Amino acid sequence: MDSFDPTFHPHRRFNPLTDDFVLVSPHRTKRPWLGQTETPEAAKLPKYDEKCYLCPGNARASGQRNPQYTKTFSFDNDFAALLSAPAPLAPTPVHPLIMPQLSTKDIEAIIEEWIRIYEARGSQTGIRYVQIFENKGSTMGGSNPHPHGQIWSQSAVPSIPAKELKSLKRYAHINYESASATKAPEGRPCLLCEYAHVEVNQPRDEGRVVVLNDHWVALVPWWAIWPFEILLLPYRRHIDSISDLDAPEKQAFADILSRITRRYDNLFSCSFAYSMGIHQRPIPKKQVDATGDDDDNYAHLHLHFEPPLLRSASVRKFLVGFELMAEPQRDLTPEQAAMKLRQCSEVHYLEGT
Amino acid sequence: MDSFDPTFHPHRRFNPLTDDFVLVSPHRTKRPWLGQTETPEAAKLPKYDEKCYLCPGNARASGQRNPQYTKTFSFDNDFAALLSAPAPLAPTPVHPLIMPQLSTKDIEAIIEEWIRIYEARGSQTGIRYVQIFENKGSTMGGSNPHPHGQIWSQSAVPSIPAKELKSLKRYAHINYESASATKAPEGRPCLLCEYAHVEVNQPRDEGRVVVLNDHWVALVPWWAIWPFEILLLPYRRHIDSISDLDAPEKQAFADILSRITRRYDNLFSCSFAYSMGIHQRPIPKKQVDATGDDDDNYAHLHLHFEPPLLRSASVRKFLVGFELMAEPQRDLTPEQAAMKLRQCSEVHYLEGT
Ligand SMILES: O=P(O)(O)O[C@H]1O[C@H](CO)[C@@H](O)[C@H](O)[C@H]1O
Ligand SMILES: O=P(O)(O)O[C@H]1O[C@H](CO)[C@@H](O)[C@H](O)[C@H]1O
Repeated sequence: MDSFDPTFHPHRRFNPLTDDFVLVSPHRTKRPWLGQTETPEAAKLPKYDEKCYLCPGNARASGQRNPQYTKTFSFDNDFAALLSAPAPLAPTPVHPLIMPQLSTKDIEAIIEEWIRIYEARGSQTGIRYVQIFENKGSTMGGSNPHPHGQIWSQSAVPSIPAKELKSLKRYAHINYESASATKAPEGRPCLLCEYAHVEVNQPRDEGRVVVLNDHWVALVPWWAIWPFEILLLPYRRHIDSISDLDAPEKQAFADILSRITRRYDNLFSCSFAYSMGIHQRPIPKKQVDATGDDDDNYAHLHLHFEPPLLRSASVRKFLVGFELMAEPQRDLTPEQAAMKLRQCSEVHYLEGT
Repeated sequence: MDSFDPTFHPHRRFNPLTDDFVLVSPHRTKRPWLGQTETPEAAKLPKYDEKCYLCPGNARASGQRNPQYTKTFSFDNDFAALLSAPAPLAPTPVHPLIMPQLSTKDIEAIIEEWIRIYEARGSQTGIRYVQIFENKGSTMGGSNPHPHGQIWSQSAVPSIPAKELKSLKRYAHINYESASATKAPEGRPCLLCEYAHVEVNQPRDEGRVVVLNDHWVALVPWWAIWPFEILLLPYRRHIDSISDLDAPEKQAFADILSRITRRYDNLFSCSFAYSMGIHQRPIPKKQVDATGDDDDNYAHLHLHFEPPLLRSASVRKFLVGFELMAEPQRDLTPEQAAMKLRQCSEVHYLEGT
């Protein structure tokens, strides 16, 4: 057998955040595709659609009428999955713009709205977790093409963030010399601070970083499952939630969100579908555990972008059969994906048209 | 607040096999859908398609030509995700029939082929797990509409079956009076024997059983994620792998596969897409662990069917945003799904046409 070549030979990679594995099979990108193709999603949406229940002035499913909003607009989900704590659909950027088309000032307004809702929900009795997320594009199950995010709040920490918090805590208690200067509480090493530090300062290969600014790094993680998955996190200091961001960190957050989403749209010249979610400290911010060593204390703010497109605007990756029954499998390597995203422009392909 | 009604109020259910939760929000089934719709999949396929690389006599991507096969045909995957142990695409029922259109005799031939490959692969050096699965339909990522299953073999037990084996082992060591007469080795209770026993003999509500025959039960599990998910397992005795099935158990296996897949196709009068996978004992069958108490010893043979369709032949459930970031969420309850499947006929809707 030839010597091991990660761009050709299948191998497994460990995900320390979820304690799972992903199978990488780079040579699979070449197989023929007679399967489902997606209709490429247009970034140009109609300015106003009278049938859209999220457009300004229109009636929603509940019969309630939206105001003639011109800024980010939040409202209660008419079909909330969680009833007793109605979850607001938020924040809705002004129709018909998607995030890569917004100014960083407008993105900052969305960030402020996330913070406001995270804190408001978090101060309600019985709420333990406030999940902010967005399904962009019909390929990713968006039930309405009008750009909108969602926030669902729950009385328990949901399975996935709960698992991540356990991994972060376990890592903090491993006894070793940490490389990163940034630390979790009590000077303990933080898995995500450490990981960002290595990717930014000590990459051992061509690297997985896509965009870097003063406070944030966007990278295709070593253990990425989705073809162009991105992990976005602050890397200068340990930050547990969006509530803890200072003004420059918020500006840098808006800057990097804009740059990531433009690269995404430019990759295949389409409105790039994804699911995005924010993982952070459960809320309310208090020690629930008698020992004071609750899992919550190890949270490090980060965002996951999970986009399905693989080869073109119309051929996606399906996480099905083997992935549902055995373990996730990916085709191109995370390094190859990062390289392609690094080569994309940060000027949106529709700009000026 | 009204008293708790599981067909209306959101609630979480625990999955003891994977140690995860699912959020059930039954009232969500009523929300409007402006999202992606699927092209209903036809159960009638062309008898022969000259462009299909899986049809008899045609050339595959590798250049190799398929024989003029008339029975189940197995061959090596030209784009195997796992290279050193090439995985056969198997077994391919005679074109153009999908499983619900096959006779139980033909399904028995497929079962024999699964057993043959499971044992042959399992005796190869370095193989630890033989994952048999099928992606049916383009909605579920099938890259070719020609009906075909797949078998991927790996040198490690993949994440999901590994997690299930850990749960089965943990359960076997809980000290309590078990209800079921069937037992795992050494007289220990088996989570799946026990669960099947309760669902078949002591249901506490309208029940989740869809089809029952002399040896197998097909049910929508309490913790189902996919709308019409089915767990299929032998319930009369503890059986660790398809190698251990006797003749009547194999016949009953073919019978129930036929009955499940006919009900599936009849539900929305289309070729019902799904991912199916067999979970069983890792292979080779030997005690790898010095204590003799390896996780392998707790395997109980079972199959998962994970179909995406939710409301009709064209509206599916998307496991996206919240599901990817927080935890799986489902709309209709497992009991409602089981009821709908029980109401379906076992005569295929195309029979006689
Ligand atoms: O093997 P196929 O049909 O080419 O491909 C399909 O099944 C594989 C195994 O579940 C997946 O990894 C692919 O994403 C899917 O498109
Ligand atoms: O909330 P929407 O856009 O109606 O629905 C979408 O997002 C939800 C949350 O991720 C999913 O549960 C749905 O399956 C999906 O279609």
